[in-house]
Amino acid sequence: MTQLIYTFAEGNMNMRDLLGGKGANLAEMTNLGLPVPHGFTITTEACHNYQASHHLSADLLSQLDAAIEKLNRDTRKKFNDDQNPLLISVRSGAKISMPGMMDTILNIGLNDCTVQALAQLTNNERFAYDSYRRLLAMFGNVVYGIEEGAFDQVLTDIKERKNYHSDLDLTISDLKAIVAQFKQLYLRSARGEFPQDPKEQLLAAITAVFKSWNNNRAKIYRRENNIPETLGTAVNVQEMVFGNAGRDSGTGVAFTRNPATGEKALFGEYLQNAQGEDVVAGIRTPEDVSVLKNEAPYLYKQLAETAEKLETHYRDMQDLEFTIEHGKMYLLQARDGKRTPDAAVKIAVDLVNEGLITKAEALLRISPDSVSTMLHPEFDQAEMDDQEILTTGLPASPGAATGQAYFTASDAKQASDNGHQVVLVRQDTSPEDIEGMIVSQAIVTSRGGMTSHAAVVARGMGATGVVGANELSVNYETKQAKVNGHVIHEGDWLSVDGTTGNLYLGQIATTDASIKGDLSVLLDWAKEYAGMDVYTNADTPADFQKALEFDADGIGLTRTEHMFFKPERLLQMRRLILAEDVSGRKEPLSLLLQMQQDDFYQLYKLAGNKAVTIRLLDPPLHEFLPHDEKEIKMVSEQTGIAPEQLRERTAALKELNPMLGHRGDRLAVTFPDIYQMQVQAIITAVIRLYDEGQVVQPHIMIPLTDSKTEMSWVRKLVVDQIKVMLKDRDLKLQYTVGTMMEMPRACVTANQIAEVSDFFSFGTNDLTQLTFGYSRDDVGSFMPEYIKQGILPADPFQTVDIEGVGQLMKMAVDRGRQTNPELPIGVCGEVGGDPASINFFETIGISYVSCSPFRVPVARLAAAQAHIKA
Amino acid sequence: MTQLIYTFAEGNMNMRDLLGGKGANLAEMTNLGLPVPHGFTITTEACHNYQASHHLSADLLSQLDAAIEKLNRDTRKKFNDDQNPLLISVRSGAKISMPGMMDTILNIGLNDCTVQALAQLTNNERFAYDSYRRLLAMFGNVVYGIEEGAFDQVLTDIKERKNYHSDLDLTISDLKAIVAQFKQLYLRSARGEFPQDPKEQLLAAITAVFKSWNNNRAKIYRRENNIPETLGTAVNVQEMVFGNAGRDSGTGVAFTRNPATGEKALFGEYLQNAQGEDVVAGIRTPEDVSVLKNEAPYLYKQLAETAEKLETHYRDMQDLEFTIEHGKMYLLQARDGKRTPDAAVKIAVDLVNEGLITKAEALLRISPDSVSTMLHPEFDQAEMDDQEILTTGLPASPGAATGQAYFTASDAKQASDNGHQVVLVRQDTSPEDIEGMIVSQAIVTSRGGMTSHAAVVARGMGATGVVGANELSVNYETKQAKVNGHVIHEGDWLSVDGTTGNLYLGQIATTDASIKGDLSVLLDWAKEYAGMDVYTNADTPADFQKALEFDADGIGLTRTEHMFFKPERLLQMRRLILAEDVSGRKEPLSLLLQMQQDDFYQLYKLAGNKAVTIRLLDPPLHEFLPHDEKEIKMVSEQTGIAPEQLRERTAALKELNPMLGHRGDRLAVTFPDIYQMQVQAIITAVIRLYDEGQVVQPHIMIPLTDSKTEMSWVRKLVVDQIKVMLKDRDLKLQYTVGTMMEMPRACVTANQIAEVSDFFSFGTNDLTQLTFGYSRDDVGSFMPEYIKQGILPADPFQTVDIEGVGQLMKMAVDRGRQTNPELPIGVCGEVGGDPASINFFETIGISYVSCSPFRVPVARLAAAQAHIKA
Repeated sequence: MTQLIYTFAEGNMNMRDLLGGKGANLAEMTNLGLPVPHGFTITTEACHNYQASHHLSADLLSQLDAAIEKLNRDTRKKFNDDQNPLLISVRSGAKISMPGMMDTILNIGLNDCTVQALAQLTNNERFAYDSYRRLLAMFGNVVYGIEEGAFDQVLTDIKERKNYHSDLDLTISDLKAIVAQFKQLYLRSARGEFPQDPKEQLLAAITAVFKSWNNNRAKIYRRENNIPETLGTAVNVQEMVFGNAGRDSGTGVAFTRNPATGEKALFGEYLQNAQGEDVVAGIRTPEDVSVLKNEAPYLYKQLAETAEKLETHYRDMQDLEFTIEHGKMYLLQARDGKRTPDAAVKIAVDLVNEGLITKAEALLRISPDSVSTMLHPEFDQAEMDDQEILTTGLPASPGAATGQAYFTASDAKQASDNGHQVVLVRQDTSPEDIEGMIVSQAIVTSRGGMTSHAAVVARGMGATGVVGANELSVNYETKQAKVNGHVIHEGDWLSVDGTTGNLYLGQIATTDASIKGDLSVLLDWAKEYAGMDVYTNADTPADFQKALEFDADGIGLTRTEHMFFKPERLLQMRRLILAEDVSGRKEPLSLLLQMQQDDFYQLYKLAGNKAVTIRLLDPPLHEFLPHDEKEIKMVSEQTGIAPEQLRERTAALKELNPMLGHRGDRLAVTFPDIYQMQVQAIITAVIRLYDEGQVVQPHIMIPLTDSKTEMSWVRKLVVDQIKVMLKDRDLKLQYTVGTMMEMPRACVTANQIAEVSDFFSFGTNDLTQLTFGYSRDDVGSFMPEYIKQGILPADPFQTVDIEGVGQLMKMAVDRGRQTNPELPIGVCGEVGGDPASINFFETIGISYVSCSPFRVPVARLAAAQAHIKA
Repeated sequence: MTQLIYTFAEGNMNMRDLLGGKGANLAEMTNLGLPVPHGFTITTEACHNYQASHHLSADLLSQLDAAIEKLNRDTRKKFNDDQNPLLISVRSGAKISMPGMMDTILNIGLNDCTVQALAQLTNNERFAYDSYRRLLAMFGNVVYGIEEGAFDQVLTDIKERKNYHSDLDLTISDLKAIVAQFKQLYLRSARGEFPQDPKEQLLAAITAVFKSWNNNRAKIYRRENNIPETLGTAVNVQEMVFGNAGRDSGTGVAFTRNPATGEKALFGEYLQNAQGEDVVAGIRTPEDVSVLKNEAPYLYKQLAETAEKLETHYRDMQDLEFTIEHGKMYLLQARDGKRTPDAAVKIAVDLVNEGLITKAEALLRISPDSVSTMLHPEFDQAEMDDQEILTTGLPASPGAATGQAYFTASDAKQASDNGHQVVLVRQDTSPEDIEGMIVSQAIVTSRGGMTSHAAVVARGMGATGVVGANELSVNYETKQAKVNGHVIHEGDWLSVDGTTGNLYLGQIATTDASIKGDLSVLLDWAKEYAGMDVYTNADTPADFQKALEFDADGIGLTRTEHMFFKPERLLQMRRLILAEDVSGRKEPLSLLLQMQQDDFYQLYKLAGNKAVTIRLLDPPLHEFLPHDEKEIKMVSEQTGIAPEQLRERTAALKELNPMLGHRGDRLAVTFPDIYQMQVQAIITAVIRLYDEGQVVQPHIMIPLTDSKTEMSWVRKLVVDQIKVMLKDRDLKLQYTVGTMMEMPRACVTANQIAEVSDFFSFGTNDLTQLTFGYSRDDVGSFMPEYIKQGILPADPFQTVDIEGVGQLMKMAVDRGRQTNPELPIGVCGEVGGDPASINFFETIGISYVSCSPFRVPVARLAAAQAHIKA
């Protein structure tokens, strides 16, 4: 005869297949010698039998009788007894926790007779009838399929008639009347009368659990979560215990460590003569669990010992539920406790120091994304209670900031120069707004997605950012923004939460954060365990400095175009683009050369011996040209070029799809002198540092490469320029020339391109755009619907699309390494700082990721986790 | 001793490796018994020896002596003889014809002594000295490296001094003076005196040929054309014969069939007592070769027999050069003759009928592109002589047309309505110009490439098109276009050649063309031999009718959006897009439904039992909205929507990169009712035809699919709509729902997508755009430079990029067929009508191509050739 029922004492943690997760857990705690209320688990095998035969087998029934008999003995109570009745709970419990199945029926064993026994036993008639009516409602709904609303209606009617405000106003006679009316509902149902026989209650409840495995909600949940249909569910039957059995009883919740700070100390709440639901109802305020220290020192000691035992056993901070019935403590549940990110880090580090877990385990326990929330200012929680949310956008760049609203980059800049704290509010932003963005505490846009220009720049700068707040209507003319009936005028105070996407009117105080203490220790361990380096995307010394504080291994991407948007440079850039021929480009190029040379010098100087990867000019030229009549007038005055001619040139450079246009290394082919100037600036900076005694190995990166022939052409342009500069110098310069991998064609022909590239670096933004045919700037109109409809599992600009984009990346890595097994391959696109993506990158052999400074610690931890898992 | 020299009698056609192409050919003709002047070939092996040792081996020298001895005997002349001197030519000849190497030195054997013998023998002292000075110049330049310009200068000086207009004015004494001065040039050169010894001339010439194998031009040519360095060149030494030896001599060129019409008859020209160069100089007009019929019937007979023999042997129309010296005919060269496309087709068909070649061979002999030139009107050649080219753009759509210039679609339409013949001249075109394009004879744009909107639409309509004529400056305000100092006003006559890209001022008459006669026979054979079907892209019954005349197998692509640009439809489309919600879309949708239903009905009716594939709406919605204030005003009046609201809605729909935006099946997800309407229209049309007794199997095509989940979603939308419509009908409808393959992601995940697609159809335009990251509309700014620099071998929108795009296509085919081995897979992008691309498609297993109506015959022939080759 197969064993279909296991007492908790017979099971253990490893029997999840047979006993389900909950059953195995209760068994494990029982075997730890902890005071778990007695009970047993009906196996998943019994469930399989039921699914095949649609009835409970004779085997099961006879084993069940024996198990109840044993439960009677163990509890010294008796099922269906009119003196000391045993009440039990019945709970489902599959291997994987699964909403959609029947959950719990409490108080089985109560009937018209045992309810009176319970009243006498607890000296609490109200409690006994309240328990009875709860059983009737739960059982009626879950087992007999009577609408929950029908039971609720009875309660509502009485409360209305008697003008009660809460269930707690119900008197004993009310409850008795309710019980009577609930029984009437049974009579009107298909299954008829409530079964007074506790045994019948139990069998019906077990059958209901088995049936619930196959209800629609459960099936859908399994399908959506890829849970095998064949698992089946176990059923847990357990003695009820009552914390409301008198003053020597009570109920509580305890954490083995402080879930807010991680401090090692018992932490929790206790309520005398009460049940868990009384705590929830909130009519009485629980006391600190330390109250037991005085009132029942032996119980407190037992609790502390239990906590210690559980932590040692489960090797993590635990969250326990316990009940004290007549001075005896019962443990109802123990599980890994939820905690704040700060606490999580402290606990993980402490557990390593206490020798309970390894560093690798500690690293795996911290969600990388939670690290991010530890690195940004937040609104002071004390001020948040009476704040009203003005509107909500996409949480583009975490943090919290407060400042005065300005609607143009130049107004923002001017206000900042005058000492104001600024929030830049725009429909959207473009590279020419960069000066205004730099000075802003926060950037808010009414359009665009998580990878729009505003979002990317905000994250890059570590500024708070909310984008796509589409209820916001921004009017540049009137310098106002309207939202939900409010009008924001220029200079009005605005507070922005980039972690939630919420906007608030007025000022809210913020609190600071940085890497220190335990987080710093953890990140050092992460560096030890990571299989790839973590670089940063940095365009300015300030960015880079920030990233170095976060221990970045170098720069994976410097976008040189951002350097051209400062006013004095923009003017030269415009003169360059507007020049009629090569000779007209000479002077602006030589001025830009001076400035770029210094940009690069500063970055290299900061880098010491860390890598700095500089990408040559990438965006289409027209981004630099004037966009409206006012700007045309200004540029005309600055350059002496007639407005008509400016208009013509701007129109000529305008493109229908600039993302797919004349940009990147295509500019190198048509305007070779621009790339030559940039290379000259790089080498000049390198020579200057060399003369100062610092050896720099420059990494030069070519954007938008499509083919080996193209890369060869551009590489030659770069190398020839370097040769010219080193001709008469006794300087053996080590340098590399690599390419972005961001065009699908480059991935497909990576074996050829690797012949002429010293490294690859995936530009996942462009690669994702081209693989899907999605413009980052335009997806807002349909992507939310795609995600809602389940057509896209997630935004592929946030987390790499493994099935599509990922396949092209894998192809590029495999083919590139086929040509050069040592080829360094990085990722410098948006997903370079995304943990799920980093996990994938580990599997395909990526050498490094590069992300915005504030993502460096996140990426580091994710890289360590990926490598440990691999 | 290795044989290093072969007389022509010893070689044959198959010895090209050893004798080179020319040598093998001369040998083959000799062995056919044709009267080839005697001679021999020095092998490529001798060339290898020379390259290794840098001198002519003793072996070679002794074999050369013997060969000259034999030549003396065979010709009954004698090398270096003062009575009857043998003159010879020395020519290089590699296996593959190769410009860049030394070509020819004529008249070797002349010196101060033999020149007099020649004068006496030919009774033509002028000819003898003219030959001598030519030898001196050719030999001096090619063998001694004396600048060609130095020889030219001597001639120029004399002509200026004597006030001559042409070389023919030179007298005998002038020529003698020139010979003397040429010899002076030798004395001033590094190598010194002209070698009077004919043997020395010969050895130096042979050495020069060997050396020329390794000169720079030859090396570059080999590198660019992938010709192996190891081939080496042979040297051909051949007796000179003279057609100017008297009245019983002459020279001629003959074709075995008429190269203009293909008619089977000897066709050519003959010039008595003359050499080939006299014909070129043009001082005497040659007579028709038939003149020989009377003057020398036996020679004419010999020529006719030679022609017959050559054609039978080479199995193709031949182009012969012959010389008659003292009544004896010599054949100097025979090769496959160049011919017009019309002649090529007639000859190929005739040769099959004559049993000389197979149908497959005939099919392989016609360039598919040449078929295209046979299908369009051309300018009457008689009128072309004094036409001056105004400017040249890209030859976007072949044909020739003449009409009056108009600069806007509406002006063009109005002029056409008033009975004018119209040429639409624009900077570029967009879908809203369609009505103006339809009425135009030709479309000219100043911007855009071969696949710009203007180009694609022009080809689709079979209208003549020239695009990217960037010297043209079009001003819509003044209604003028400026070009090279000319101003084209509205209404001015313009003539457009879409085959060459040339524009002309004024009217030029055109001639018509169509499929008939031999071309029709050839295309029937092509259908027999093709491995794939040829469908057409057709949006209107008129397009489709045209394609059916060209025997298209069905429609591979109907772009439904083009149907929405007629004014009454555009209005409804605008009302649809501007509606606030689903209910506001109902009325315009139902009106559009009526119109679409009729569109489809017409196409299906025409199709009979041929396939019609309808693609659901593809372009971004904002293309339908008003673009400027004038249009906004008009639409506001039509719809009653306030201009302000129109401006807002248009701005909201505007996209930064519309090609990557909210279009294709993304519209199905956000506006499902539009696709539902289109499906309803299709099924309504099908039912109507069913009721009329015609059974239609509709093929519905979904654009822009990225993933299986997306395709499933849209497929369900389509299928549900069909089910609703067929619910109460006794009609078992066979239909298919397939997807465009145009996103790289779709190619990569084709195995999954094939699970929910009944067919694939590659959209190579979008796929190429995304694989390269090139916008078709914007490539004009850099692609010409890319092609010029050799970074791109060709425009990938014209001919599929096999290495990149092709790999993704192959992946998609392989993965799709992995899921469904029977999956039909077509190509409906621009390259669907390109022969080189079709050749590639055959290798990866494409089932059908679809192209514009006028490309159908081209594609058919290309498909046949590809299948025969495979």
